[in-house]
Amino acid sequence: MIEVINPYTKEKIKTLALHTDAEVEQKILQAQKVKSALKAFTPFERSQALHFIAQEIEKRKDAFTELIIQEAGKPRIYAAGEVERAIQTFTIAAEEALRPPQELMELGRSLKTARKIGEIRYFSSGVVFGISPFNFPLNLAVHKVAPAIATGSPILLKPSSKTPLTAELLLEVINASKLPKHSVQLVHCSREKGNELVADDRIAVLSFTGSPAVGWKMKQQAGKKKVVLELGGNAAAIVCKDADIEQAVNKLLVGAWAYAGQVCIHTQRIYVAEEIHEKFLEHFKTETQKLIMGNPADDKTNFACMIDDSNTQRVLSWIEEAENKGAQLEFGGKVEDNILLPTLLSSTAKGMKVRDEEVFGPVVCIESFQELSAAIEEVNDSKWGLQAAIFTDSISNLNQAFNDLEVGGVIHNEATTFRVDNMPYGGIKESGFGREGVAYAMHDYLEAKILVKNK
Amino acid sequence: MIEVINPYTKEKIKTLALHTDAEVEQKILQAQKVKSALKAFTPFERSQALHFIAQEIEKRKDAFTELIIQEAGKPRIYAAGEVERAIQTFTIAAEEALRPPQELMELGRSLKTARKIGEIRYFSSGVVFGISPFNFPLNLAVHKVAPAIATGSPILLKPSSKTPLTAELLLEVINASKLPKHSVQLVHCSREKGNELVADDRIAVLSFTGSPAVGWKMKQQAGKKKVVLELGGNAAAIVCKDADIEQAVNKLLVGAWAYAGQVCIHTQRIYVAEEIHEKFLEHFKTETQKLIMGNPADDKTNFACMIDDSNTQRVLSWIEEAENKGAQLEFGGKVEDNILLPTLLSSTAKGMKVRDEEVFGPVVCIESFQELSAAIEEVNDSKWGLQAAIFTDSISNLNQAFNDLEVGGVIHNEATTFRVDNMPYGGIKESGFGREGVAYAMHDYLEAKILVKNK
Amino acid sequence: MIEVINPYTKEKIKTLALHTDAEVEQKILQAQKVKSALKAFTPFERSQALHFIAQEIEKRKDAFTELIIQEAGKPRIYAAGEVERAIQTFTIAAEEALRPPQELMELGRSLKTARKIGEIRYFSSGVVFGISPFNFPLNLAVHKVAPAIATGSPILLKPSSKTPLTAELLLEVINASKLPKHSVQLVHCSREKGNELVADDRIAVLSFTGSPAVGWKMKQQAGKKKVVLELGGNAAAIVCKDADIEQAVNKLLVGAWAYAGQVCIHTQRIYVAEEIHEKFLEHFKTETQKLIMGNPADDKTNFACMIDDSNTQRVLSWIEEAENKGAQLEFGGKVEDNILLPTLLSSTAKGMKVRDEEVFGPVVCIESFQELSAAIEEVNDSKWGLQAAIFTDSISNLNQAFNDLEVGGVIHNEATTFRVDNMPYGGIKESGFGREGVAYAMHDYLEAKILVKNK
Amino acid sequence: MIEVINPYTKEKIKTLALHTDAEVEQKILQAQKVKSALKAFTPFERSQALHFIAQEIEKRKDAFTELIIQEAGKPRIYAAGEVERAIQTFTIAAEEALRPPQELMELGRSLKTARKIGEIRYFSSGVVFGISPFNFPLNLAVHKVAPAIATGSPILLKPSSKTPLTAELLLEVINASKLPKHSVQLVHCSREKGNELVADDRIAVLSFTGSPAVGWKMKQQAGKKKVVLELGGNAAAIVCKDADIEQAVNKLLVGAWAYAGQVCIHTQRIYVAEEIHEKFLEHFKTETQKLIMGNPADDKTNFACMIDDSNTQRVLSWIEEAENKGAQLEFGGKVEDNILLPTLLSSTAKGMKVRDEEVFGPVVCIESFQELSAAIEEVNDSKWGLQAAIFTDSISNLNQAFNDLEVGGVIHNEATTFRVDNMPYGGIKESGFGREGVAYAMHDYLEAKILVKNK
Repeated sequence: MIEVINPYTKEKIKTLALHTDAEVEQKILQAQKVKSALKAFTPFERSQALHFIAQEIEKRKDAFTELIIQEAGKPRIYAAGEVERAIQTFTIAAEEALRPPQELMELGRSLKTARKIGEIRYFSSGVVFGISPFNFPLNLAVHKVAPAIATGSPILLKPSSKTPLTAELLLEVINASKLPKHSVQLVHCSREKGNELVADDRIAVLSFTGSPAVGWKMKQQAGKKKVVLELGGNAAAIVCKDADIEQAVNKLLVGAWAYAGQVCIHTQRIYVAEEIHEKFLEHFKTETQKLIMGNPADDKTNFACMIDDSNTQRVLSWIEEAENKGAQLEFGGKVEDNILLPTLLSSTAKGMKVRDEEVFGPVVCIESFQELSAAIEEVNDSKWGLQAAIFTDSISNLNQAFNDLEVGGVIHNEATTFRVDNMPYGGIKESGFGREGVAYAMHDYLEAKILVKNK
Repeated sequence: MIEVINPYTKEKIKTLALHTDAEVEQKILQAQKVKSALKAFTPFERSQALHFIAQEIEKRKDAFTELIIQEAGKPRIYAAGEVERAIQTFTIAAEEALRPPQELMELGRSLKTARKIGEIRYFSSGVVFGISPFNFPLNLAVHKVAPAIATGSPILLKPSSKTPLTAELLLEVINASKLPKHSVQLVHCSREKGNELVADDRIAVLSFTGSPAVGWKMKQQAGKKKVVLELGGNAAAIVCKDADIEQAVNKLLVGAWAYAGQVCIHTQRIYVAEEIHEKFLEHFKTETQKLIMGNPADDKTNFACMIDDSNTQRVLSWIEEAENKGAQLEFGGKVEDNILLPTLLSSTAKGMKVRDEEVFGPVVCIESFQELSAAIEEVNDSKWGLQAAIFTDSISNLNQAFNDLEVGGVIHNEATTFRVDNMPYGGIKESGFGREGVAYAMHDYLEAKILVKNK
Repeated sequence: MIEVINPYTKEKIKTLALHTDAEVEQKILQAQKVKSALKAFTPFERSQALHFIAQEIEKRKDAFTELIIQEAGKPRIYAAGEVERAIQTFTIAAEEALRPPQELMELGRSLKTARKIGEIRYFSSGVVFGISPFNFPLNLAVHKVAPAIATGSPILLKPSSKTPLTAELLLEVINASKLPKHSVQLVHCSREKGNELVADDRIAVLSFTGSPAVGWKMKQQAGKKKVVLELGGNAAAIVCKDADIEQAVNKLLVGAWAYAGQVCIHTQRIYVAEEIHEKFLEHFKTETQKLIMGNPADDKTNFACMIDDSNTQRVLSWIEEAENKGAQLEFGGKVEDNILLPTLLSSTAKGMKVRDEEVFGPVVCIESFQELSAAIEEVNDSKWGLQAAIFTDSISNLNQAFNDLEVGGVIHNEATTFRVDNMPYGGIKESGFGREGVAYAMHDYLEAKILVKNK
Repeated sequence: MIEVINPYTKEKIKTLALHTDAEVEQKILQAQKVKSALKAFTPFERSQALHFIAQEIEKRKDAFTELIIQEAGKPRIYAAGEVERAIQTFTIAAEEALRPPQELMELGRSLKTARKIGEIRYFSSGVVFGISPFNFPLNLAVHKVAPAIATGSPILLKPSSKTPLTAELLLEVINASKLPKHSVQLVHCSREKGNELVADDRIAVLSFTGSPAVGWKMKQQAGKKKVVLELGGNAAAIVCKDADIEQAVNKLLVGAWAYAGQVCIHTQRIYVAEEIHEKFLEHFKTETQKLIMGNPADDKTNFACMIDDSNTQRVLSWIEEAENKGAQLEFGGKVEDNILLPTLLSSTAKGMKVRDEEVFGPVVCIESFQELSAAIEEVNDSKWGLQAAIFTDSISNLNQAFNDLEVGGVIHNEATTFRVDNMPYGGIKESGFGREGVAYAMHDYLEAKILVKNK
């Protein structure tokens, strides 16, 4: 059984039954079976279904927002933003369904092949198994579901057991569309059962968003599957001496504290040029104090609790470890009214979990730097490589950052949390494998097939 | 020690020492180290180096041809063709080095992002470990080396222990270019040592061409690496009743018997419409008899021995198994002068190795069919899915074949062995993972990085 | 003054005042002035405006349909189809506004430029002057207006003086969107005044759909403008001996008789393989007799009158000319109840207007052929080159037709009238200059600008 | 008769006969006739021919350089550079011949078209008439010839009557290739005869590089042709206060004085931020004095004479006009040893020819500015719009410049004369119509043809 708990009020929202082994098996069989119906369901029809779903979510925006607040403890403003994003993601998929990555390729590379041309089209790889996390219970599920629909691929989605209700509502909306039945199915199961699916040869693609330890292990057990992993990071922002401090602070406040840092691209580290370090720090503190904490369901709340107590305790212990190793607590570091306060640490160093690991909580390390190259090295001195931000007006700084930062995305004059749903998104090093972003995810759910013919 | 043997004369050509563990470790370190030099080596310089290498191979064409004849036992006409192909592959890579898959992406998907644009560029993933087979000792090595150079990726290449000398000559040519030293290195090692490299985290990409059993296992042991597998198949050709029989026979003769069938896309199965089956068979027999067998070094030889006795024996045993299970031997089926004769079997059926497994020898199964859909089903009733050919002038036949054949490539009015070196090449199902073909291989050696900025 | 007349009932629908010279001048000035507002109006906002317009047309679908029936005399079924197409065209433009043809170009072509990259983006060329015809009073106006909005280009649209009311309703819808005021303006003026605009240097692009004589003359007077001309043709369909006769007849019935042939890509010529000529002809006659003629406002009517009497008389005189020169009237050739009946001629030949010129009326010439190459030559023996159709299942036939037909589009197993609004559409030879189809039209309204920078 | 004169020594090099009317007519007929041979000459063969030509020029590099020095009076260093560029241009064309702009387009935009796909391929438009200028007698001819060959289009090239010999040598090289005879032909004729060709309907494309007055008039007389115009400009460079002064001076020295300013993208105007204006000016003067003037054939000469006396006199008169209107002569302004000295003017203003018109000589206007927006306005306050340069390290400056400068290309930290032969090149406003740069020119020589078919 899954007990869904409101992380702020601690009330139980609902109890869901896990699917039995027989039910899961049945879902796999149905996913296999719906392949031929989906093959006959044209890109136009897929596009129409995706538009329909986007419109339905628009209509039921409040219900989705409320569910995300309830089960994820996400402040209303961010929950509503996530619903908007999900609508956008489906809309993009509706458009991309009509723009598959097909091409005509000239094959004339010798007299023998001088009149040949290749027609390269893309076909669904087969069943997708998607695993989505609690922190964006809607949009990170949509980033697996929408590309699956757009490519005509059946999908089995296992949502986080902490936030299954949003996924259930999404399924309801999808089932109201004209998609062949069983195109999209939910699987509520234990991690062990999940691992069986990871290894199941009837599934062609694994798309996992979650923790690195789990993800990388799955890659090894995935057999012949294609694998996409969207894992964690300890994203860093670099604020150069020529940056607009006010802009940098305003953007990084969101990067640092949105959803209590429970975001893969949460700004966990801030490196500020020493010339402006003090001023930045002061301004950042002042602005952080203006956060409105409380019940995520309140309209004005923009900072609330973490997903559960064990995570709160984990983060507290990491802060303690950092302080024990010499870090300085600038503010925060404690729990009030079930809320771990925004926590800023300085004098952090390699070897502290708050700097090296993915904190996934409201903790930020702030340090100063002299040369940009040193800041870049510091950012790169990490096993992670998801996104990084740089605040500067210098072309050479930006070029250097883009060329040298070992990440999947470099964000200029915005926080590390910046993401648009069509852009390629994902990390290198231990942060991930492959990219999401609708067209990119679609590519991973497809196989190229070439027709060689005469012109 | 590696003993390189001429498969036809059985003479020993040369003895090579395996690299010691220390040498292999040294090579990995040097590959790691050359990354920064390669990062600074511009696409223009990579392109120039690739052109230089192509020109050098052109100059030393005879030496390469001779080596391929000697160590692979490949008839001169095919060996010379392979050298031409390798020149072409390097030339394509020289051109593609200047056409990376970069793009500008509009990010205006909400008012908030309305002035954002994404600049997506691609950077080398890191060290590539390439493993290449004996059957195209030059060009299948080049399909790993050229994309590595084009993307600025260091590569460690492990050539087949049966045919290491062609790779050595290739290395000599590459070392004469202006590429940073150690950009391309050869590794001669045992399979066990190879497996260690497959698992080594300092290597970012594994590109393997070889046997399925080995390849799929490597995928599981490859850790965080990207993996490209080019494995085997039992490629089939469908000859429709409206086909030009003479054309079909002439093309399929090459598909069937080139290099004694030791080609991944060897035409192992031929399905002929029953209306023309008899005529086709007769014509095919007649033409097969015209093959000139003998020493691969002779100018006129177009059919010679297999790579070694154990493979000859294996194929003979498969033929025997098929006959025991009811297959009919149309011709061939025995060894003469160290050459396993071209062998045609009919009345084959599922359950016989010659039909189900990759025979990788001069054996072809020929069957007839009534409906095209039945022929397609028969082709698809296999664990493999590399390439298939269809001979027809009917648009609806061709559409049906392209839509329904479960393969990476459908070839119209040419044998299954058709390949141009820029086209995406690779299989689905158990035949492979990912695609080669220069630009496609390059894509797999690269990581996308996005710069989000204001317009 | 413009008097708008119902072509079927001959009733006057409305009287519109022509714009005075001062009004036209004012419109040009406003178009100039709105350029800067449009430059600041982001692609996202343009896309939103285009979606809004599409949705509004959807809501007012009946009003649009009614107006098209009234002022163009188009049967309801086709009028409603046109409104659907217009919605589609705006929707495509909404999507394409977010997919401008920008690119990143590697510039490393020598050591000197080895670190340069080009960022190529597209900017509005300036004011567009669109001239649209009576036969698709909505969708052919939209094919000028929607790309203008998508590219941020002000547009002055001169609709046909026969059908200005649909354009007025469209303007009303557009003005309800958030587009900067005066982004889209209508100009009702004499041909002379129109010619002044054609020559006016403040206008950057001329997009004309209409008669060839007028169009080609405009090109010469257009000064420094870019010019797109969508002119006429005498489109031909080839029915090969292996064609599905029933399919060919059903498709060509629409190509031949839709909107009484007043369509640029009206199937004016049908060439049938002699083996099936008789059967085709008989079937075609039978089916033509099933057309339901009458008031275009009636639900069931699928064939009605021409746009005005002078055109009816012109076409009658052409038919007479053809008969005088030896053509045989298979059926039709006369007016009943204000409707020029569907007219089929055989034994036509070069030198007859019904074959050589654009008839733009319900007249079709049908001839037989022996060899495909002869049919293709006959199709090409014309000053026009818009679209052609071919009915066959033969790959070699289709290849030959595609390679050799001198037209902008070859349609397989559909009538010449086939068009989807995103596809490139337009003719060669005297049939036109440039292509429409949303992304193609957008390209013509844009100028490339390259930023050369260091990587 | 054409008398070819060495502009420096004033010696007659050679006398060429103009082609008679009959000869020109014959060339047109041959161009028409070679179309079918070129249609059958595959992209592969075109590519091979283009590579061959590039290699032949490489072999005869010295002869080409010498001819350019002789007939154009271009200093050896720049003449040799032009030959390198021509080789590059042919090489790019050889590559692009194999990468035509073909595409597969999804046409599923309604249920009716849900299974349709468009195969869009490009075919030669027909005969190209190219007119090339004296200032790059080789490479600007090649920019017309190479795309013609790459697209299989016959071309008639009319080189400048001042520099026909380089074109003759180029033709010799081309004729040694395997291209069908008459694919490329030279026309030496009077301007009047040239105008006849401009109007000739047998020619499909006019590609003109030369003076604006001539070009724009040709556009009006070009009938149904496609027209590409590469005309003049008064290119400006903006040097911001944060620029690297030394870099800016070094780059702009070349932009200002290369080939005595006889370059379309010659840096005619320099706007320097007032904070660094004085320093820049001083440094620029000092460096200009280091120019080595004299015989262009001398190895060290980097500044020589203009193309002829009438142009020298014209430029002198413009300088005089400017001084009369208040401009200040910083240096130069007179002729020494047949060489018009490098001339720098300050206090120039609108209304002076040296600022408003294309000077096409060694004259530069230098002014200071306070705000970047004012400098951009000043640059834009011109009828021309070819290229502009900006020296800055500021991202916001560069964005502003790229968004607001009304030109075809913005060059960052390089002179306005920067060009790579694959990049889109051409102007807006009166500076031109369309773009060259190999793939871009190819696009203009091609017509799209779509095949609509079922998937």
